[in-house]
Amino acid sequence: MKDRLDQQLEFLRIVDGLKRIDRMTRLIQQPGESARRENSAEHSWHLALMAMMLVEHANEPVDLARVLQMILIHDIVEIDAGDTFVYDANAMTGKAEREARAAERIFGTLPDDQRDDMFSLWHEFEARETPEARYASALDRLAGMLPNHANGGGTWNEHKVTVEQVTRRNESISMGSTMIWEHAKQWITATHHAGLIDSEADRK
Amino acid sequence: MKDRLDQQLEFLRIVDGLKRIDRMTRLIQQPGESARRENSAEHSWHLALMAMMLVEHANEPVDLARVLQMILIHDIVEIDAGDTFVYDANAMTGKAEREARAAERIFGTLPDDQRDDMFSLWHEFEARETPEARYASALDRLAGMLPNHANGGGTWNEHKVTVEQVTRRNESISMGSTMIWEHAKQWITATHHAGLIDSEADRK
Repeated sequence: MKDRLDQQLEFLRIVDGLKRIDRMTRLIQQPGESARRENSAEHSWHLALMAMMLVEHANEPVDLARVLQMILIHDIVEIDAGDTFVYDANAMTGKAEREARAAERIFGTLPDDQRDDMFSLWHEFEARETPEARYASALDRLAGMLPNHANGGGTWNEHKVTVEQVTRRNESISMGSTMIWEHAKQWITATHHAGLIDSEADRK
Repeated sequence: MKDRLDQQLEFLRIVDGLKRIDRMTRLIQQPGESARRENSAEHSWHLALMAMMLVEHANEPVDLARVLQMILIHDIVEIDAGDTFVYDANAMTGKAEREARAAERIFGTLPDDQRDDMFSLWHEFEARETPEARYASALDRLAGMLPNHANGGGTWNEHKVTVEQVTRRNESISMGSTMIWEHAKQWITATHHAGLIDSEADRK
C-alpha cells in the first residue's frame, strides 16, 4: 500500500502543473477591465461544476460520477502538450501525437490499474461515443462560449472568428444536450446582432 | 425548463469569481522560482483529483460522487467572504457569519431545489460528520500540506508556524484517512529536520 500512495502523491504533484497552462479564453470580465486568461486547472473545475448543475439537461441519462472524473482529467495531457487554440488549424497538427506522449508519461507515474483507468477515461472523453462523453464534451464547448458571450465577443472578436466558424465548432453541443445548444445559439446571435462578430455575409 | 437554465447559467457566471480568490498556499515551485499563490478554483480542481486518486485510502467506504460534489462547491462562499488563512486567529473571527451570508446570496441564484442541495452539501462538508465529509476535509488539509512540503516549508516557513501548530491544524486528516495522515506526518518531520520549520522546543 505504501508504494501506491507514494506513486499517487507523485502524480498529484506533477498535475499541479496544469495551473500553469493558459487557455485562450479569459475570465468573465468586470466593468472596464481586461481580464486575464484562464488556466486549464481552473477551467476543469468550472467545467465539473457545470456538469453538476446542468445534468438535468443531458439528452440521455448519465452517470454523473463518471462525467466528473472524465472532466477532472480531460486536460491533464496539456501539462506536456500545451493548450491548442481550437480555431488555429496549424497548431492542431500533431496535437493527437503530442497528447498521446503526454498521457503515457503523466498517467504512467500511477500504479498500473489507475494508469489504465485514466487512459480509459481520457479515451472515452476524446471519442465522444458514450452519453457521458457526449455530455462532458458539450460542456467543454459551452465553457468556451460562456465567457466569450459575457465578454462582448471575447476571443471570437479578438481573433476575428465568424458566426459560421463559431457555429460549426460548437454545434456538437447538441449531441450532449439539445436544450443547452438551443440556448448557446442565442448567445451567438446576440453577439452578432451587437456587431461584435461578423457573419460571412457581412464580409462580402 | 427555460427559466431553470437561465438561473443555472447565471450561477455558473457568478462562480467564475472563484478564479480571482487567492489562497496563502503557492503552486509547487520549479527550481529557482518564487511561485505565485494558487486560487481557490484551481485548488478545488486539485482537491477533486486527489479525492479521485486516493479514495482507496479512506478509512470508511465513501460515495465518490458525493465527495466530488462537496469538494467542487466547498469554497464557493469565498467569492464574497474571501479566503481566511487558517493560522490567523483574528481573521477567523466572523468567518462563519460572512460565509453564511455569501452562501445565501450565491446559492440563492439557483432554482430552489438546487439551492437546497448546495446548502446541504456545503453544511455536510463543514460539519465533518459523514464519512464523505471526513474524507473530503482530510484532503482539503492535505492539499495545504502538499505544496508546503514540496516548497521547502512554504507558507509554514514564511509565517513562522511551528511543528506543533502544523500538527494540531492537520491531525484531523486521520479522521478521514489514517494511512494518509501517517504519510503527511513524515512531511512535517522531514521539513523540521531540514531546519525549515521550528518546534516549540527549538525556540526555548
